[in-house]
Amino acid sequence: MSDSEAPYPTIIKGASFLLAWRLEGKKVLLIGGGLVASGRLYYLLEAGAHVTVISPRKRLHPETAYRIDVSNTEDIIYEDRDYVGPEDDKLNVADYDMVLTAIDEVGLSRRVCIACREARVPVNVADVPPECDFYFGSQLRRGPLQIMVSTSGRGPKIASLIRKQIEASLPEDVEEAIDSVGKLRGELRQRAPGTGGSLGQKRMNWMIGICDAWRLDELGGMTPEVRKQLLDEGWNNNGKILSPRDVGLKSGVAGWWMDIRTKVVDTLAGGDPQVLRAGIAGFIVGGAIPGAIYIGMLYQKRK
Amino acid sequence: MSDSEAPYPTIIKGASFLLAWRLEGKKVLLIGGGLVASGRLYYLLEAGAHVTVISPRKRLHPETAYRIDVSNTEDIIYEDRDYVGPEDDKLNVADYDMVLTAIDEVGLSRRVCIACREARVPVNVADVPPECDFYFGSQLRRGPLQIMVSTSGRGPKIASLIRKQIEASLPEDVEEAIDSVGKLRGELRQRAPGTGGSLGQKRMNWMIGICDAWRLDELGGMTPEVRKQLLDEGWNNNGKILSPRDVGLKSGVAGWWMDIRTKVVDTLAGGDPQVLRAGIAGFIVGGAIPGAIYIGMLYQKRK
Repeated sequence: MSDSEAPYPTIIKGASFLLAWRLEGKKVLLIGGGLVASGRLYYLLEAGAHVTVISPRKRLHPETAYRIDVSNTEDIIYEDRDYVGPEDDKLNVADYDMVLTAIDEVGLSRRVCIACREARVPVNVADVPPECDFYFGSQLRRGPLQIMVSTSGRGPKIASLIRKQIEASLPEDVEEAIDSVGKLRGELRQRAPGTGGSLGQKRMNWMIGICDAWRLDELGGMTPEVRKQLLDEGWNNNGKILSPRDVGLKSGVAGWWMDIRTKVVDTLAGGDPQVLRAGIAGFIVGGAIPGAIYIGMLYQKRK
Repeated sequence: MSDSEAPYPTIIKGASFLLAWRLEGKKVLLIGGGLVASGRLYYLLEAGAHVTVISPRKRLHPETAYRIDVSNTEDIIYEDRDYVGPEDDKLNVADYDMVLTAIDEVGLSRRVCIACREARVPVNVADVPPECDFYFGSQLRRGPLQIMVSTSGRGPKIASLIRKQIEASLPEDVEEAIDSVGKLRGELRQRAPGTGGSLGQKRMNWMIGICDAWRLDELGGMTPEVRKQLLDEGWNNNGKILSPRDVGLKSGVAGWWMDIRTKVVDTLAGGDPQVLRAGIAGFIVGGAIPGAIYIGMLYQKRK
């Protein structure tokens, strides 16, 4: 490599490898049933895993107990007893796709970890980082959208603070935006069918262009008529990318004003108070200047 | 369960299980060296993996070639040839902790996937969801903070749009905030040492209280003196939680003004243009009202 000098971002080690693991229909062993286990169980069930929970009923967190009671036996198999260890013939860790422990017995957890690593089964031992093949982060889900915030173990609370801030900053109709893009892509494929090759590339570039030209909140408000317009007057017109302005959704000053109005409404409905404050401060300062000049003039006149 | 009715969130299946996988020092096989592989390689190296890349040099993306050329042989082992398949004795998939393929040969990828699943090695075949044990999302990293946005395959472009919006909405000093919390926790542990039990619980609750009482941008500006004050006048005072106001960092109108000033500075430095627009709009409207009154009065006087 002589023709360029560090043209790419430098590697800074120390990151985790963030993944969206697929657990639909997978077998997961969850050892423990307390508070930590109840959180794990929630996310496992949302991911469609078939979970075996082992913990004496008297130590179950109310949420774990509730999940066990309302689930069918395909989603949760419950063993009302203490886990004795990897030598448990009935619960061989090698039979599972993932094992999570959330118990206080450090020695027992360590034995589970060793058995899992021998059997090449991904394992997480709550609160014992060296015995974890993976960590959890603070998560949020809005329909098809999932976001995870990880601070590499620097504190779950601050990860959750950042997650909350992200949650508050997401456009209210972010699910609709994802949905609109999905529908537009489907309609585009109907109009220009076929896989791969230059057509596939052209379709992809057009979709990327649309996503670049439309803000998230604008995508969310995309009606079927607008999608049709984008395809009729855009795609059919040499793959032109039409913006919200082009389809008459907003223009010049009107669009500018719409942005502010949307933001003020969002703010009054619990959005970013900084914007409202900036507006009020601008109003006061803007009003104060001619007001002061006028008062000054009145004062001079009296003298 | 008779004493309560659905007291917990209902399970909505269809989610992925979001994880921060640990790859430090782990062996990863990356089959392919093109554009997609170059992205994979970047994140693998940031995670500290030891990556074996197999791809003929003539098909390497410039970034892949660059990484190979500047890395040491511990980080990247490069095989300048085509991969023939899982029967390759030198590159047995079972010897790796993870396998990623990013090649066009669908049949070859499928054989890799089957071999990996037999050997229980996590595998991702780019663009073939059924052959993936996990998916990737759109990511960002700021020091210890990592965020992943996943749309469950509804379109990588919209995930990247959302990721960009999150990136823009993060306080500029979010790394400092994480750092402050880490330091405060360390200092608290020095002051009240010991593990577990009620002291551990009290320490945890105090840290949670602080994180709740301080905004992210306030945490970022926490000086060593302020941390000492929080411990001296807060923790030592029956574990009291002091807010930024309590330590004199902001109060009433002054704090309000500080928020606006910070936001205006952020905005001018490339932050959220909405806030600036709101300020300008307020300024114009605020100035226009007394201005209009004054002009009206002048006009009447002339008549």
